Amino acid sequence: MQEYLDFAIEIAKYAGIVIKDNFLNDSNSIEYKIDRTPVTIADKKINSYLIEKVKEKYKEHSVDGEEEKYLSNSKYVWVCDPIDGTSMYTRGIMVSVFSLALVFDGVPIVGVVYDPYLDKMYTAIKGNGAYCNDKKIHVNSKKYGELGLSIDWCMWNKAKYDTIKLAEILRENCKLCQLGSTAHAAMLVAEGKISGEIFPGTDHGHCDIAASKLIVEEAGGKVTDFFGNDQRYDQGINGAILTNGIIHDDIIKINKRIYKKSVN
Amino acid sequence: MQEYLDFAIEIAKYAGIVIKDNFLNDSNSIEYKIDRTPVTIADKKINSYLIEKVKEKYKEHSVDGEEEKYLSNSKYVWVCDPIDGTSMYTRGIMVSVFSLALVFDGVPIVGVVYDPYLDKMYTAIKGNGAYCNDKKIHVNSKKYGELGLSIDWCMWNKAKYDTIKLAEILRENCKLCQLGSTAHAAMLVAEGKISGEIFPGTDHGHCDIAASKLIVEEAGGKVTDFFGNDQRYDQGINGAILTNGIIHDDIIKINKRIYKKSVN
Repeated sequence: MQEYLDFAIEIAKYAGIVIKDNFLNDSNSIEYKIDRTPVTIADKKINSYLIEKVKEKYKEHSVDGEEEKYLSNSKYVWVCDPIDGTSMYTRGIMVSVFSLALVFDGVPIVGVVYDPYLDKMYTAIKGNGAYCNDKKIHVNSKKYGELGLSIDWCMWNKAKYDTIKLAEILRENCKLCQLGSTAHAAMLVAEGKISGEIFPGTDHGHCDIAASKLIVEEAGGKVTDFFGNDQRYDQGINGAILTNGIIHDDIIKINKRIYKKSVN
Repeated sequence: MQEYLDFAIEIAKYAGIVIKDNFLNDSNSIEYKIDRTPVTIADKKINSYLIEKVKEKYKEHSVDGEEEKYLSNSKYVWVCDPIDGTSMYTRGIMVSVFSLALVFDGVPIVGVVYDPYLDKMYTAIKGNGAYCNDKKIHVNSKKYGELGLSIDWCMWNKAKYDTIKLAEILRENCKLCQLGSTAHAAMLVAEGKISGEIFPGTDHGHCDIAASKLIVEEAGGKVTDFFGNDQRYDQGINGAILTNGIIHDDIIKINKRIYKKSVN
């Protein structure tokens, strides 16, 4: 497992260089995908590099990148979002991160999220805790109702769930923020700086969440779909709620009420 | 006027050092004000320094800082938000900026917004255009309805206007973001990276907007209250809409409809 983590860290360091090299660079041209989310040359370059390196080292494994895939029949899948928070990246805001998980039979077993601007490498191996630059990290212990701050939430038109309804209820007890990078916000949950992250879901949402799932849970938190169910991270997911664990059930209860759907 | 601008830039550079020195520093302790917004030692230190320097150089002028005031009978008021985006600052997100305007009889005549992380100094003197690091900047020319992205909006519980209602309408045509610093978002408007910024208003809202008002308008944009009215920046303001000018009237029309209030 340590070997897989070392491999993931090596990819993350390369991604960090590409992200910083192309930051504020006008030639890093932006295209828009079918769902109107942006993709840059930097996204594609990182995704291609990952595929090349997996083919070299673990050629039986699959790669499920947000921008490009390389699929085999293996139960091992490298699930990657090359730049989580591309919109912010294209606006010159230093909030975007790299995210990569090794998923075995749907379950993340190694995860890395890298913030290249602050050089913060968040890592986890299943069962071994969560770390930031080799220092152990832990979620906070704030209860819902005590939250001066805060929960990060994503909101956009084409998402699976309309989180405006949820935000209207949550803000009674929380100061809500909207970071512009789900994986970065998830790392703030893992570090205890915020108490939760609400991700409303997209077609390739598992690429955004796979590494965060492992790191947040290894830091003592909880990650499920919008209704409290476990998720597989080698396929599309049904939104995601990532919390310190303590406020999790409160959010799930609200979701069941407002989205009128019960747990399977 | 150039002398006033040079003075403002000198204060901004000092503020940048304080902001960066205290960033990610646990001893930069946080307190919460009556409206539950946070204030740090860095905020207070910058505000005090400004008052000290104004007393030295322009002792007849007033200072209206978000954390501390020094009031005379002068028509000249230095209006300052030491750290715009303090919540993000305390979470270790590099998005907060320093904001300072010299306001004469309610009208900003010199404005500076400084992003210390990217070392971007946004400046304007009334009638002389807007600059970022001495390079002229200009708003974009996107029409409402053409906006792939984007408008930044602030949302919180205790604000004067509940911007969730507005966001629900705007997002039909825009990708909304929420930066966590109004003045920083305003600079993205001035640079043409986004098309607008929605600020829902607080008691000391003029401190957040005074410098941005001048810089956005000198970059070719428009700044008014929620209903299209001009504002004085030596007193509380009624929210603020900061745009590229082209989409301004569309937003004002929506506001008049949903907040059921007509222009004076």
